[in-house]
Formats: sequence, C-alpha cells, structure tokens
Amino acid sequence: MRAVDIIEKKKKNNPLTKEEIDFMVQGYTQGQIPDYQMAAFLMTIYFNGMNYDEIANMTESFVNSGDSVDLSRIHGVKVDKHSTGGVGDKISIIVIPLVALCGVPVAKMSGRGLGHTGGTIDKLESIEGFRVELSPEEFIENVNTYKMAIVGQTANLTPADKKIYALRDVTATIDSIPLIASSIMSKKIASGADAIVLDVKVGSGAFMKNIDEARELAKTMVSIGKNLNRNTIAIITNMDQPLGHEVGNSNEVKEAIKVLSGKGAKDETEVALTIASYMCLLGGAFDDFEQAYKELETKINSGLALEKLKELILIQGGNPEVVDNPDLLPKAKNTFCVYSEVDGYVNKIDAELIGISAMLLGAGRKTKEDSINYGAGISLKKKIGDYVRKGEVLCELHTDFDNVEEATKKINDAYTIKDELPEPKPYVYEVIQ
Amino acid sequence: MRAVDIIEKKKKNNPLTKEEIDFMVQGYTQGQIPDYQMAAFLMTIYFNGMNYDEIANMTESFVNSGDSVDLSRIHGVKVDKHSTGGVGDKISIIVIPLVALCGVPVAKMSGRGLGHTGGTIDKLESIEGFRVELSPEEFIENVNTYKMAIVGQTANLTPADKKIYALRDVTATIDSIPLIASSIMSKKIASGADAIVLDVKVGSGAFMKNIDEARELAKTMVSIGKNLNRNTIAIITNMDQPLGHEVGNSNEVKEAIKVLSGKGAKDETEVALTIASYMCLLGGAFDDFEQAYKELETKINSGLALEKLKELILIQGGNPEVVDNPDLLPKAKNTFCVYSEVDGYVNKIDAELIGISAMLLGAGRKTKEDSINYGAGISLKKKIGDYVRKGEVLCELHTDFDNVEEATKKINDAYTIKDELPEPKPYVYEVIQ
Repeated sequence: MRAVDIIEKKKKNNPLTKEEIDFMVQGYTQGQIPDYQMAAFLMTIYFNGMNYDEIANMTESFVNSGDSVDLSRIHGVKVDKHSTGGVGDKISIIVIPLVALCGVPVAKMSGRGLGHTGGTIDKLESIEGFRVELSPEEFIENVNTYKMAIVGQTANLTPADKKIYALRDVTATIDSIPLIASSIMSKKIASGADAIVLDVKVGSGAFMKNIDEARELAKTMVSIGKNLNRNTIAIITNMDQPLGHEVGNSNEVKEAIKVLSGKGAKDETEVALTIASYMCLLGGAFDDFEQAYKELETKINSGLALEKLKELILIQGGNPEVVDNPDLLPKAKNTFCVYSEVDGYVNKIDAELIGISAMLLGAGRKTKEDSINYGAGISLKKKIGDYVRKGEVLCELHTDFDNVEEATKKINDAYTIKDELPEPKPYVYEVIQ
Repeated sequence: MRAVDIIEKKKKNNPLTKEEIDFMVQGYTQGQIPDYQMAAFLMTIYFNGMNYDEIANMTESFVNSGDSVDLSRIHGVKVDKHSTGGVGDKISIIVIPLVALCGVPVAKMSGRGLGHTGGTIDKLESIEGFRVELSPEEFIENVNTYKMAIVGQTANLTPADKKIYALRDVTATIDSIPLIASSIMSKKIASGADAIVLDVKVGSGAFMKNIDEARELAKTMVSIGKNLNRNTIAIITNMDQPLGHEVGNSNEVKEAIKVLSGKGAKDETEVALTIASYMCLLGGAFDDFEQAYKELETKINSGLALEKLKELILIQGGNPEVVDNPDLLPKAKNTFCVYSEVDGYVNKIDAELIGISAMLLGAGRKTKEDSINYGAGISLKKKIGDYVRKGEVLCELHTDFDNVEEATKKINDAYTIKDELPEPKPYVYEVIQ
C-alpha cells in the first residue's frame, strides 16, 4: 500500500477499505506517513466525504491508536454524554446527579476547556477543594457506590485523532462532518462508554450554523454508534443564544444549582432534562421518555437532585455548603453593567460574541498555559424575546480587570434589538436515534 | 495574511487575489509555508479549479520565484514550442531547422528526459560530438547568426514550480489543469519566449486521455499566454499510438532526418509541419497558415531543410555526416523481433506501454542517475490501420540486453488486433488560439 494511491482513490471518490483507512491513520500516528500526505488526504475527505462504513472504520482506527479506558468493573450500562460545544453550557453538571439518582452509572471523563470558558472540569474546580484527579480505583469505586464520578482525562486516548486534529486546524479541514464525527465518537468510545447521548448544538454560538448540517452530524454519529455497538442518541438543541443566563465558571455552577433546585431557566432545564432522560433510557432505568422526564422533574422538586449534587461534591473532596450558599463560590472583584442603547425586543444574541467577551473578562483560556479566573463571567439579564428599554441593563460583566471596553463592545455587537418580537424557536429541535 | 485563511478561501471556491497567490507560492518556495499547507492548498485547487486570472497570476508567481533568461539581444520574435509529452515525439528536432530556415529565431532550451526515452537534448547527444552546453554568449550568437541553437537548461528557472511539482507527485495532485498549465507556461516564459506553440497530445500515450480535457488544457494555456502578453497557439494532436515508427534516441534522430528529407511517416510529417507553420506565423515570417505550410514543404523537397539540420549539428560541434549516413549513429548490440499472434487489423497501440517497453530496453531513465543507451529503442513495423498476419513482425526491439521477455510482453499487450478496420482518426484535431 502507498499513501499516494489511497489519496488518489479517495480523490476519485471511491470508498476506502478498513485496511486502507488503518494504513493512513496508524501510519500517520507512527510518523511513517508525512504531514503533507495526511493534509492532502484530509482535504479529499472534506470534498468527497465518507460513507458510514468508512467513518466507523476511521473511528475505530482512532480508538485503536492509543489506550482505552477499562470500565468493565463498573456494574450496569455506562452512559456518557457529549456536547458539540456551546456558550453557557453547564448541562453536564446538571445531568450527572440526575442520572445517578436513577441508578444509571455515570463515569464521566472530561478534558479542560480551551476557549470562552473553562470545561466542566474547570467549572467544578471553582468549588473549593473539588478534586478531579482520582485514581482509577477511586473513580471506579465511586461510580459503583454513588453511581457517579468525574475525572480529568489523563490516559493516552486517541493519539491519532489528536495529531490529525492539530493538522486539520492549520490546513482548513476542521469543518468536515466525517472528521468531526469520528473525532468525537472515538474519544467517547476510548473513554469506555457503553452508550452515548450527544447534544448537537445548532445556531450562532455553535459550530453547526444550520439545522441541516447539525442533522447530518447527528445522523453520522448515531451511525458510528450503531456500527460499533454503542447505543447512541443525538439531541439537536438550540444555541442561538447562550444557554441560561450565566456564562463563566463559578456562576455556571450557581446556575446548575438553580436548575437542580427547580428554579432554572426554561431553556436550560428542558435541554438538561431531555438529555438526562435519554441517558436514563439508554441506561435501562426507564422504558419510556415521558416517564423518565417526569420522574426527573419529581427528583428535582423533592430536593433529591440537589442532595445528590451535594454528595457528588462531597465525594470529590469539595465543600458541599456551596449548594445551599452559592455565595461561597469565587467572585470577581468588579461588576460592570452593559446598557441597552435602544428600546425594543431582543431578537438575537450572538452566543459566540458573548463567549469571546467572557474570555476577555478572564473566564476562559486563550492558550493551554493561561489560567482561569473562576469568578469572571457574564450574567445575561435579557434574553431572546425579552423587551428592553434604552438604558436598561443587558448584561453584567464580572471580572478582576478594570478595563472592559472590548468586552462591552462584544456584548453590544452580540445583541440585536428590534421593534417586533422574534419568531419563537424550540429549545430542543430533534432527536435522532 | 495567513496560509490557512487562503486555503479556506479557495476551499470555499472564492477566487484568490494576485497577492494571495504570491503569498502562497513565494512563501512555500522560501520555506515559510510548510509542505502540509501547500498540499492542502493544491488539493483545493484540484477540486475547485482556478479562473484564468488566478492561473495567470500563479504562472507569473512561478516565473518570479527564480531567474529568467534574457534573450533581448536576439533579433526578432523568439518563438518556442512545447509538447505535453508523448512517445516517439521527435518533433522538436524537425521543427528547429525548418523554422530557422524561414528566418524566425529558435532559441531552444530543453531539459533532460525522465521516462520512456531521453528528452530532445538526449536524442541530439546521440550524435557524436553534439554539445548542448553552450555559454549564453555562444547561444545568443548562434541564434542571431543561424537563427537556431539548442542548449540544456541550467539556470535556476521557476524553482517554485519545481518544488510544488515534487509535492504534487506525492500528494495525488498532478492531474489538475490549472497546475499543469501554469507549470508548463511558467517554464516557457522564464526561458525567454516571446511567443509559444503548444503541442497538446491526447490519447493512450498522453497525459490527457480525452479531447475535452486536452481542449481545456489548451485553452487554459492560451489564456495564460494572452494574459501575460505571449502570443500562444495550442495544437491538439493525436497520441493514440507512438508518433512515426521509431521510439528511442538515435533511431528517433534517424526518423527526424527522414521527415526532413521528405520520406517521413505521414502522421509525424503533418504534426511537425503544422507546428512549424504556426511557429513561423507567430514569428512573423508568414501571414497565412496554408502559405507557411506549403513553403515548408518546398524547403523539405528542395533539400534545404536537410542542409539546415546539418548546419545545426555542425555549429553545435556534432558530426553532420550522420545526416547523409545515419548508420553512423549509435546502434544497440541486439535486435529482437516481436511477432503477431493473430491475423487482423491493428486497432490500437497503447503508446504508454510501448514507451515503458523502450525504457526497459535501455532507451530511457527510470531515475535521474540512470544513463541512456542511445542505440536502444523500438521500431514499429505495424501501425494503426495496418493489416498484419500471424507470425509477421509487429516491432523490432533494439537493446544491449539479452533478455527482452518483459519488454516483449509490453509490446504484445500494447497491440490490439481485430478483424475489422478501425475508424480512422486525424493526426491534428484542433488548433486553439
């Protein structure tokens, strides 16, 4: 086999065999195939796509390129979740205790965030004492005992995907559905998931800007799951504006607490409960979605959900008092307000700009080496459909910095305010299974 | 400017500016842009093509990446010719004396061949004493005095194209018309041509397998010429079988002598006279194609053409006696015959297989380091349309080797013999100007 012949074959839009895909992926990971051949190959995939068999083979090849986490000592069906990334997305913090409460084991492995805010791991670390470095034994024991644990990703998972992702970043081959789908699914499978619920975001704050692309990505990932014997469901959700009202780290933890106490924003609550319900379904706790959804609402209203979050914090070494007294969470030194310059209805909030603004305030990392200011972030006081008067507060900015000119500008740019009410859109668009 | 943004722009099928193309080409040549970004970029060009302005800018950028030959001291319009490459193509040797005879200066620069046989330079070197290393002064003086000279290419012409071509070879991006066209035209322009006649071959022995592709390549190159103020004409010619009857080095020189003495094969004679006529037209020697063609026939029939070839050989230090006595040219030790296994009409001769066979006999180089056996080659005794009986000779193989099993097999594979006569095809398909 020669790499150039495989590139030529894909260029001519012929499907590749499992062996050919393996040859490219493992050869590249091991340094036998140079960057330039992989770059040309990735561009042929951008243009010609891949069929579901090829994509499943690519995913498997990524998984086989490194270690896989062995979760076989955990009892029950290990259900993982993944979000394609949005702004203000604190869903994982909400669903872990909810799903665990229903007896479905959640063995969550999570990476650190690079971008608007920290990742789930970073957000939880804003809780004093919260440890995300657990030994494999402690991790598995916690899941078996409490049905939940979260740990920072340390193993050498899917090195092929890591190396290829870095190359995609500099060769304009990020936006290829076969490559996105295999990248995501390979990480979930290598992390030991038996079943997966995917939250595919669509809208201004998401990588997928329209529903057709989101649907294609969702279908592709579900097909990989089927092909590789991992029950997979994808939920397409709205990311036309940040989820909920809080963007940052400690303030997202606060908002997760609100949702688990039944006082959360509608959008966030619906998305979290939908995802948690499907996770429970895949984990075998319920047979029926409505039944699961109702039961989860009951768990919230009874206060059990909040107790379970306290338990999670406790077993990971954190201070559970933050649940009853969120003021114990880190706060930024300064709060600035961004005011509306006009009267009208909020029609759009560009979530990406809000995210960038949050990063400028110190909530996220630009590079791996940057540190996060847990208290930094944004509180959205007006969301799509809200009426706002000139001079009223749109957002509060929390930061240790004294100059928020650029961040304020991004907020103003993010909001589109018009005389008429916008067409309402659902929080959850579709479920693909 | 960032390479990744330019790749993205071309990927989304937006035309690039002159500055963007220059940024990629010069940046890559100078090592600031890595192979993997150029590889991805080339693949976007393969898929999305380039418009005529982009291709002209690319060509100019290739030219500007290195030296250009200064032929300004040569009087008159310097007309160059180029062939996209075929088997048995000795047209350059025929047209140089013909065009020079009409007073049009031919300052021919030529590379060494890699492949089936040597290049024009190698073929001429099969003549004892023939020197292709002339000083720039001698070269220019010869062209001014005799209207002709040929020299091996030594200057650092179009290094960008050289580096990019090497990358295309290993990334399956050879077969892109914008890249082929800009590569060819940049070399001609850097060589100092004022006007260019292109021989675009189409058929089994050519890179372009069908007339549509050949026409697109021809039109693209003519547009580059127009864009960069070089009068350019492209002739699309038949390469469904080797040109003439001889493939090799010294035997191709022999056949060129035949054509110049009026005893050449029909196909070769027509193609050579057509190209020479258009070169004379571009050089201003004639206003009318038919007039030029007739005049060239007269020059052949009068013996002047042959005398002019002798003069070329003489001024380049070679032994002109070979013209009257071609047996002075190098001969291979052995001659083997390949016989027909059936009765019938020759319907096809795969020129590429004949070329590979010639290389196996020692006529060409597999790698730059290989040496050429000038006497090695193939004499085709039967061409398309000829009737052949079982046991009759199809080809004679000339070689110093004793084992010609593989070369013989290629010859047998190359010939398709059927009961019916094949549809006749023209030698010259179209002229694009």
